Amino acid sequence: MRDEGGSSRSSRRAAPRLERRPRAAREAARALRRERGRLAIVPTMGFLHEGHLGLIDRARAEADAVAISIFVNPTQFGPGEDYEAYPRDLDRDLELAGGRGVDLVFAPGPEDMYPREPSIRVEPGPPGNRLCGLERPGHFSGVLTVVLKLFHILEPDVAVFGRKDFQQSVLVRRMAEELNLPIEVVAAPIVRAPDGLALSSRNTYLSEEERERALSLSRALRRVRERFAEGEREAGTLADLARQAMREAGVEPAYVEIVEPEELERVDRAAPETVCAVAARVGSTRLIDNTTLGGPSSLDDTGDTRGP
Amino acid sequence: MRDEGGSSRSSRRAAPRLERRPRAAREAARALRRERGRLAIVPTMGFLHEGHLGLIDRARAEADAVAISIFVNPTQFGPGEDYEAYPRDLDRDLELAGGRGVDLVFAPGPEDMYPREPSIRVEPGPPGNRLCGLERPGHFSGVLTVVLKLFHILEPDVAVFGRKDFQQSVLVRRMAEELNLPIEVVAAPIVRAPDGLALSSRNTYLSEEERERALSLSRALRRVRERFAEGEREAGTLADLARQAMREAGVEPAYVEIVEPEELERVDRAAPETVCAVAARVGSTRLIDNTTLGGPSSLDDTGDTRGP
Repeated sequence: MRDEGGSSRSSRRAAPRLERRPRAAREAARALRRERGRLAIVPTMGFLHEGHLGLIDRARAEADAVAISIFVNPTQFGPGEDYEAYPRDLDRDLELAGGRGVDLVFAPGPEDMYPREPSIRVEPGPPGNRLCGLERPGHFSGVLTVVLKLFHILEPDVAVFGRKDFQQSVLVRRMAEELNLPIEVVAAPIVRAPDGLALSSRNTYLSEEERERALSLSRALRRVRERFAEGEREAGTLADLARQAMREAGVEPAYVEIVEPEELERVDRAAPETVCAVAARVGSTRLIDNTTLGGPSSLDDTGDTRGP
Repeated sequence: MRDEGGSSRSSRRAAPRLERRPRAAREAARALRRERGRLAIVPTMGFLHEGHLGLIDRARAEADAVAISIFVNPTQFGPGEDYEAYPRDLDRDLELAGGRGVDLVFAPGPEDMYPREPSIRVEPGPPGNRLCGLERPGHFSGVLTVVLKLFHILEPDVAVFGRKDFQQSVLVRRMAEELNLPIEVVAAPIVRAPDGLALSSRNTYLSEEERERALSLSRALRRVRERFAEGEREAGTLADLARQAMREAGVEPAYVEIVEPEELERVDRAAPETVCAVAARVGSTRLIDNTTLGGPSSLDDTGDTRGP
């Protein structure tokens, strides 16, 4: 991604304003709304890639001003997860954000967001205990709590999340609805590399050999979509197909789930809006991916053509 | 309280605007802020008494416009508690609110606040598990969740809560702080009847004989303050004194706790800011009361003078 610095520099606009303290960020966000109109935000953990930049472009299309947050949130990482190792590069992030016309970057430290041991938490309820929630207890409580804090600090009209984190985007939208937040939550399509791999900051962890095996996730999803298009409706059959595609590449799935997109409950019979979500560890890197079974998908534009 | 209708009518201003739907209430609240300035809210469960009216007066002193919510929130009542029996009288509430210059009354039904089975909840953490939280599991989660919804709907600058519900006011203030809400939370002093009983909508449940026994709660707190003023600092001794005062009146305490006012943890040695909180069932009515051990207290102005 560093190599892309040249092209982003060439399209760079004014550097975004950087704020580290919640109160100063709120004042800056209020000034943007006062002076410009609608404010959209993109919450991120930084180390921006084309996936984030796609979310930023979507935010610009939805509003008159754009703020992003960059915060590697400790409360959503479990013991033994990669909180310390998670990649960080604020200078590069600021340059990339400026290149896409971001007006405000809120980049607090843990001590700004959690000046004392937090007690109050937002709990997602049953849909937070499925899929990634099974493997990562407490993860979505950490996510929802920090997202709500960011909403209260930046007071956006619109918040843009990536559909790559499918369960997260479902839960955030549900939080906004159930807690009567005056915020529109947009879930933007997955951005993929030309070979089909869903973009993620964690992809930087992958060796060349691991990256090759990581393609089995998107390949599995593509096969499931194909089989669904051919008429298969049995969720069990479709899930087995995905597992087989991943195992062929030597990747053991953490889960393959065929779920309806509201409660995230398993279905027996698949429908076009049904989602297939997969997770697996490739080497030591945890990857996730998902697609709807029918309708358009980011998978349609990508993928190896070597086939099975 | 009905008998007071005459006096409140005589001072009545314009009737408050009544809204039942969250979206309409938000629009009305935004209009108030636009046209007047600072907005203060007083969340209530209705059946207003002089305690609530005191909170409304405080709200008027803090802001340029005042909204109250009236909502008997089912999610903060446990099984077997008095959700169905809780007293309700919206017409009288509107008249009393109008008499104190309330601009907006938001009185939704359960179906407006919970259009579907809620999944997302705010959890208070450890300070929610003490005092009333021990006896009423889930109560404070229900309270914080509905208060947060009301905050998002009405978007106030200030929210006024009564110190009678001591633990609630501590948890709401903490929620506002930890979740970065742009709202000032004010805890207003307890309003008491001339005989010392802390005002509560639940006092209407009390028979004459029960009401006499109910005075043992405030009497217990007054004795604890007196003994503290005389130099006693042992929390155990002070708590025993309160228990004894209640038992003398045939009232068995649900709890008597001597706690510091942030984490609500028990202390061994009492200080002026230390709080004594008591709860008891008198007949079938659950009553609570509290005081700081030092400094001014609503108990100073009231109480029977027969006491030992």
